[in-house]
Amino acid sequence: MQRHFDQELGALKDKLLTMASHSESALVNAVKSLLERDDHLAQEVERQDSVIDQFELELDELCIDLLALRSPVASDLRLIAVAMKITQNLERVGDEATKIARRALALNREAPLAISPDFLRMSGMANDMLRDALDAFVHGNTQKARDLIPRDKAVDALNKQVHRELNDLMLADPGNINRALNLMVVSKSLERVADHATNIAEEVVYLCEARDIRHADKSERAV
Amino acid sequence: MQRHFDQELGALKDKLLTMASHSESALVNAVKSLLERDDHLAQEVERQDSVIDQFELELDELCIDLLALRSPVASDLRLIAVAMKITQNLERVGDEATKIARRALALNREAPLAISPDFLRMSGMANDMLRDALDAFVHGNTQKARDLIPRDKAVDALNKQVHRELNDLMLADPGNINRALNLMVVSKSLERVADHATNIAEEVVYLCEARDIRHADKSERAV
Repeated sequence: MQRHFDQELGALKDKLLTMASHSESALVNAVKSLLERDDHLAQEVERQDSVIDQFELELDELCIDLLALRSPVASDLRLIAVAMKITQNLERVGDEATKIARRALALNREAPLAISPDFLRMSGMANDMLRDALDAFVHGNTQKARDLIPRDKAVDALNKQVHRELNDLMLADPGNINRALNLMVVSKSLERVADHATNIAEEVVYLCEARDIRHADKSERAV
Repeated sequence: MQRHFDQELGALKDKLLTMASHSESALVNAVKSLLERDDHLAQEVERQDSVIDQFELELDELCIDLLALRSPVASDLRLIAVAMKITQNLERVGDEATKIARRALALNREAPLAISPDFLRMSGMANDMLRDALDAFVHGNTQKARDLIPRDKAVDALNKQVHRELNDLMLADPGNINRALNLMVVSKSLERVADHATNIAEEVVYLCEARDIRHADKSERAV
């Protein structure tokens, strides 16, 4: 029976990774639709969100079934609990991607506002963090997971910097207010994606070390 | 053994409700600190956030222990799964309260900007939704949970209205920009609280009816 259960856990992991690839694509495409002013791509991101939502429902159901039928303990139990948490974070990444795509559609209706290098750096970092968190999960690499966590502070700082720059644009010309507000929402969404990547990394540490490092101070998290 | 387990589930529920009362207080006090320009209260909300975080860790640990030791099925399993989800939502409500308190501290350093009636209505609605969702959980009242869900749309609409009003204030006078941005963040936080209340209500329906209504369209949710 354990062998069959191992197969089921393998299938759970595979499904979670398929969901992850959808969330990652949604994020990449949402940012692309903004930078390339591509309405069509933005609409595609919006449409794909229901696929990600459906994965969340199916994965949660699968986890509950495995808990009920297999009464897992120790690392098997942690894998299922962690899968439920990661699923939720991936669903939220999909929501943030949709939010970005909607703002892109709004921004595309106006003249372009210059995108700051800080915004581009933040977008790259949020993407990288998400990819690294999922990679740490796939390979059970706690060091990679721990290394990722402090990068969240850098993304927070970039988000604040982007907000300051957009604030200055608003003060300089009220004609910029609408577009700057839309970009602020996008910047905040990217900052949230980095939060979700951090959450996933914390779950990977819990999965591999049976140690809950959420809400720990920075030094303990980075051990 | 089932009797002992029932006691353990009762203790889990009690602890969850204690956490809920902390999150509710944090929210009420955060909004109060903004409306009454009370720095001291805002700082108190900030300090209390770590108490709420600690509840999240302890509740998750308790749930994992119960899953491992009791191998629950059916409604007992759902209660534990739902407790983990509600815990996460309550932790996020605490985060939103902290965010509001920080914006209150920033706003208190400047001359007051008139608070719109829509903002006050939204704040009251978000509070009420959270209280009703928790009440539905306590009493296993799915009708109350279902009735609450459509109110989320009204809060979304009020948030949009508040954003429009704040946008107008920015356009009318760049001197308003900073304060309006802070109030936009607060408004968004209240809208998020309503989302968390909605999530909790959906979990209550799942707990009582073994039916997952997340991501369902409005008509099905309101059945």
